[in-house]
Amino acid sequence: MLRCTRCGKTYPETLRLRCDCGGTLLVEREGYDFFGNLLPYLDMRRYLNFLPVGGNYLPPAVPAITPAVSLDVNGISALFKLDYLQPSGSFKDRGTWITIAKLMEEGIREIVLDSSGNAALSMALYSLPAGIKAHIFVSYDATPEKLSLLQRLGAALHFVDGDRITVHGKAEEFAEREGLAYVSHWLNPYFIEGTKTVAFEVYEQVGLPDYILAPTGSGTLFLGLWKGFKELERMGEIARPPVLVAVQASGYESLCERSPLKNNLADGIAIPNPPRLGEMKTALEETNGLCVSVDDMETREALSWLKRAGFLVEPTSAVVLAALWKLIETGEIAEGSRVLLPLTGSGLKMTEGI
Amino acid sequence: MLRCTRCGKTYPETLRLRCDCGGTLLVEREGYDFFGNLLPYLDMRRYLNFLPVGGNYLPPAVPAITPAVSLDVNGISALFKLDYLQPSGSFKDRGTWITIAKLMEEGIREIVLDSSGNAALSMALYSLPAGIKAHIFVSYDATPEKLSLLQRLGAALHFVDGDRITVHGKAEEFAEREGLAYVSHWLNPYFIEGTKTVAFEVYEQVGLPDYILAPTGSGTLFLGLWKGFKELERMGEIARPPVLVAVQASGYESLCERSPLKNNLADGIAIPNPPRLGEMKTALEETNGLCVSVDDMETREALSWLKRAGFLVEPTSAVVLAALWKLIETGEIAEGSRVLLPLTGSGLKMTEGI
Repeated sequence: MLRCTRCGKTYPETLRLRCDCGGTLLVEREGYDFFGNLLPYLDMRRYLNFLPVGGNYLPPAVPAITPAVSLDVNGISALFKLDYLQPSGSFKDRGTWITIAKLMEEGIREIVLDSSGNAALSMALYSLPAGIKAHIFVSYDATPEKLSLLQRLGAALHFVDGDRITVHGKAEEFAEREGLAYVSHWLNPYFIEGTKTVAFEVYEQVGLPDYILAPTGSGTLFLGLWKGFKELERMGEIARPPVLVAVQASGYESLCERSPLKNNLADGIAIPNPPRLGEMKTALEETNGLCVSVDDMETREALSWLKRAGFLVEPTSAVVLAALWKLIETGEIAEGSRVLLPLTGSGLKMTEGI
Repeated sequence: MLRCTRCGKTYPETLRLRCDCGGTLLVEREGYDFFGNLLPYLDMRRYLNFLPVGGNYLPPAVPAITPAVSLDVNGISALFKLDYLQPSGSFKDRGTWITIAKLMEEGIREIVLDSSGNAALSMALYSLPAGIKAHIFVSYDATPEKLSLLQRLGAALHFVDGDRITVHGKAEEFAEREGLAYVSHWLNPYFIEGTKTVAFEVYEQVGLPDYILAPTGSGTLFLGLWKGFKELERMGEIARPPVLVAVQASGYESLCERSPLKNNLADGIAIPNPPRLGEMKTALEETNGLCVSVDDMETREALSWLKRAGFLVEPTSAVVLAALWKLIETGEIAEGSRVLLPLTGSGLKMTEGI
């Protein structure tokens, strides 16, 4: 069932983005035995028993189980999760895959969404085999490479003059006016069901980290990781989730103090007012977590380090390493800690700037 | 040990590209128990016990275990292996990963290679963390996106006027003159040790296919698949390897009859005279296999089909689907067969033409 994160009201598992009270929704299911319910796949289908879809239609480009690699970073065991190795080049495919499966179950064939790039790219790619028409609202400052790809994927592009929040509003308006399903990943509870599988994989691959540093804009990955580890806790696998660190782009902070200087590189998390902010605050409180803000220069430096380690990612992915350096320097993260750093978006999409 | 594919002479497992007689080399090892020797990783390290490296240095960007997805193609069960989901955007990372590990063991810190794009990109990316200087010989008609990436990865680029065979010759000359290690993936026996893991994964994921359709230029994937399945045979897992189908680019055939019309899209397999030709012929003979040639128009049509299935690949990857259509039409592959189609290179690298 779906449960409202604000008033607690429950709904059946259909496509629904908000509670009647306006609150955001999450999927809630019974506890399971984790290892007893793994399926013998070596891709995301491995976790189908924990996902709210029937399996009648599963999109062909199944997300991969991505490598988790441990490297020493100034005395810290940094666990890099290469989640940029997905079919459309970002972790978003996990959420999209489940969402498309759900849309097909519900017989929905035309959708509306808004995105700075990766979520749109993912949804456009997965809509194709499903025969779903995707209206995608983007701002004019989306990167040309991503727009070019979107066009070649046959998406119906709607350009909006304004920031991410304006684009979001326009998309919601259009969907309401046209009577179409709005599937913003910011609100869609099924999207988070997809991203929670990162936690399951990490747990299988390297066990329980002490900290998780996640790039945090709308919170789809941050909350997915939190939900995944909480489910592992409920299944009796772990005593408590890791400490969550929300890493944000300077100038666009929603959890940290808002900085006057804008980070123009980490465009994937330039979301100053995300609708799931309350849930993110709860996650930080419950795990004794914190927020770290990263600027342009720090992002660039981290991006360069990652490239030299062989991780070809886009700038948004680099903020977590910059944040780790800061937390090591301030002593917030102690030597010997195990820190998960999900790398979220591929650098192959970029013809410049890496 | 290494064994010459021509005269049978053996050598210790050092970096060596040819036998004294000029023949190409392959790694040969004792038989093992397959399932008893899998390591508990969910990435390529799972197969380390079958690979000729010690494990003292393993490059951080470990190749993923890529999804294998079954789709119906005109009554055939087509098993698409999404091997383009690798750190540099192609299956080549499997061969590179092992090669770099081997180079580090041998203390080699400066290398020479030639490539139409993907192998170079892969080697440049993996050379960075290892601190290896990579001299890469390319022809002027390599795609601009790949050249741009190579430059940003700090490769020492050497441009050659001529076709792939000319580039190959120039690289070999340079290496000899400068006394540097030449690690062409066309000859390097360790590269094939990496690509053979595709066979291991497929066997774990979907069992034994009836046919394998592999894009075949220099034969690094084709021979890797053959070697992987032959090792599974020797380990007692399967009765015999699948029937191998070499899929080639028209105008560049080495196994099929040479066509006058050139396929200008499938640049990854435009290799008219590969050094491992004899081995490929043996593989076709031993498995009762055949060769299929694919032209531009067929490549384009298959590429479009793949995109609409959600597989964002580069043109070279599409030839296998075009070949499957042909073999179904001629009745060569019968209804109900299980056919493996490895998809080898990512389409994200291309800003145009998909």
